[in-house]
Amino acid sequence: MSVLIDGLQYANWSERIFRQMRAGGVDAVHVTVTYHETFRETVLQIERWNRWFEQFPDLIFHGRTGADVLLARQTGRTAIFLGSQNPSCIEDDIGLVEILHTLGLRFMQLSYNNQSLLATGCYEADDTGLTRMGREVVAEMNRVGIVVDMSHSGERSTLEAIEHSARPIAITHANPASWHPALRNKSETVLKALGDSGGMLGFSAYPHHLKGGSACTLQDYCDMIARTADLMGPANVGIGTDLCQDQPDSIVEWMRVGRWTKRIDYGEGSAAAPGFPDMPVWFADNRDFGNIRSGLNAAGMSDADTDAVMGGNWLRFFDSGFGARGTGAAGAHDAD
Amino acid sequence: MSVLIDGLQYANWSERIFRQMRAGGVDAVHVTVTYHETFRETVLQIERWNRWFEQFPDLIFHGRTGADVLLARQTGRTAIFLGSQNPSCIEDDIGLVEILHTLGLRFMQLSYNNQSLLATGCYEADDTGLTRMGREVVAEMNRVGIVVDMSHSGERSTLEAIEHSARPIAITHANPASWHPALRNKSETVLKALGDSGGMLGFSAYPHHLKGGSACTLQDYCDMIARTADLMGPANVGIGTDLCQDQPDSIVEWMRVGRWTKRIDYGEGSAAAPGFPDMPVWFADNRDFGNIRSGLNAAGMSDADTDAVMGGNWLRFFDSGFGARGTGAAGAHDAD
Repeated sequence: MSVLIDGLQYANWSERIFRQMRAGGVDAVHVTVTYHETFRETVLQIERWNRWFEQFPDLIFHGRTGADVLLARQTGRTAIFLGSQNPSCIEDDIGLVEILHTLGLRFMQLSYNNQSLLATGCYEADDTGLTRMGREVVAEMNRVGIVVDMSHSGERSTLEAIEHSARPIAITHANPASWHPALRNKSETVLKALGDSGGMLGFSAYPHHLKGGSACTLQDYCDMIARTADLMGPANVGIGTDLCQDQPDSIVEWMRVGRWTKRIDYGEGSAAAPGFPDMPVWFADNRDFGNIRSGLNAAGMSDADTDAVMGGNWLRFFDSGFGARGTGAAGAHDAD
Repeated sequence: MSVLIDGLQYANWSERIFRQMRAGGVDAVHVTVTYHETFRETVLQIERWNRWFEQFPDLIFHGRTGADVLLARQTGRTAIFLGSQNPSCIEDDIGLVEILHTLGLRFMQLSYNNQSLLATGCYEADDTGLTRMGREVVAEMNRVGIVVDMSHSGERSTLEAIEHSARPIAITHANPASWHPALRNKSETVLKALGDSGGMLGFSAYPHHLKGGSACTLQDYCDMIARTADLMGPANVGIGTDLCQDQPDSIVEWMRVGRWTKRIDYGEGSAAAPGFPDMPVWFADNRDFGNIRSGLNAAGMSDADTDAVMGGNWLRFFDSGFGARGTGAAGAHDAD
């Protein structure tokens, strides 16, 4: 059975979007619930999801295991997997890692653009790698089953996370820097180390990560995926659209600025274009995954590899990544 | 299979006590994790339990369902069920009911001696019954599977909770006021209504709830249990020792005073005896449940009824009370 999984979205959620997920046949999505929020604020965001789960039980439910992706497929719903783009949610308390896993968190980035308590972000001038607490928290994430996500982290921190983590990590939404040299995109060194360790890259469709931005063509995007699959191994790549559908521009400002500065930081944008960029025409919303599938075929990818990229690889990764250590296959590094 | 379950303890937990539980053959205990703590402070208490679960996996584990009691028996461990003696942990946020259920909370008192946002405590001069929020929270507790516990609530609030709750409620640790007229003990009106609704009373061995205090005899206690079983029905009673083993007196002050007054409130104690009272000689710690079992037999209780009181009734109540509504038998009131 082929499944369709998106490795990251952060939409302004609504019944309309949940129905578009169903129309698009999306079996599972990793959704961001928190950026700069404290633990208590993160819990408020999980409470919002609990209300949506209660309100729309025929469309969505809270996914916790790989098996939930198959349950979603069988019951015609979308399994929602929660994640954080920053470790603010654990504050300075390693005990919150297990608490948040119990509440359903399945991914956590070690940093978001800036230095965090755990690791360096991709916008800092110097990357000092994993901090003392960072190494402790990675071990705890390994123990309980929260995937280390380095999408917004710096090069050295990312390589150290790959090395230090006993379980494969993910970069849920980014592209190769060799294709489009954004600070958020990743070097071939990182991508090869990620693939060699059994980790996963989710290809972003967010215009700032695309060659040509919003005008990037579907074929250029899919050719890039095919080439990166050759570099990393076809089992180590998936989709992570970074779809921020229906969000007001105030949200991208929160993502970039949080409470860490009193000034405006434009992040990947600019003073002239401070808001969310337009998505490429071939991926406006969750009904457009068929375009990517067709594009992968046109890029020469086999049906089996296309199925793997569109969801099969994430499913295997979910299966092995979300349980407590020792309760399931934990990946190539687990014997370390 | 007969099981041994204690409906409430609040010890100063340690490996020594966990080993005493094993020596006493205790299959499951409902433990208090919070009184006046905020949500974040309650989470810190759950984190402490997570550390104990990680440290002593051969002695204890986190119980979440009735089936976990049987798992505990089969694996020679004690299942720990978490509860709150006050609704401070949900602050003013009904969404925290489901969050705390996900984190493992299985009992919550609607008030602790004082007026709360939900109900009136047993020490207030006037009991105005369930508040507007109280009725909403009871419905939410019913939905997710947290048992309403009225051990420290007033008479009217307790009767209204029994009436309003769609699932049977519990008074986890108290005795009949007709036996010993403490403010914390319960009227026959309450006990009959509780039994008629399928609810549960756990008999306290805390000296302030005992006729004669610390000098109460085992037989007096067990005769009282037998009479109350006749009043309420033998299926609706269990043990709830309220054992506060090894706690310093600063803890009973926190229980009584929290942050609601700057003065000392002696609660059930007095200026002359402000601390924890001595436990009766026949129940010093978890190794002494055999004394109660023998006392019940001596009081004329059948072996089957004794098994029910020592754990069988709590097991049935756990089985039906802890799941989401509609996922299991939800008790006599569920068709309301």
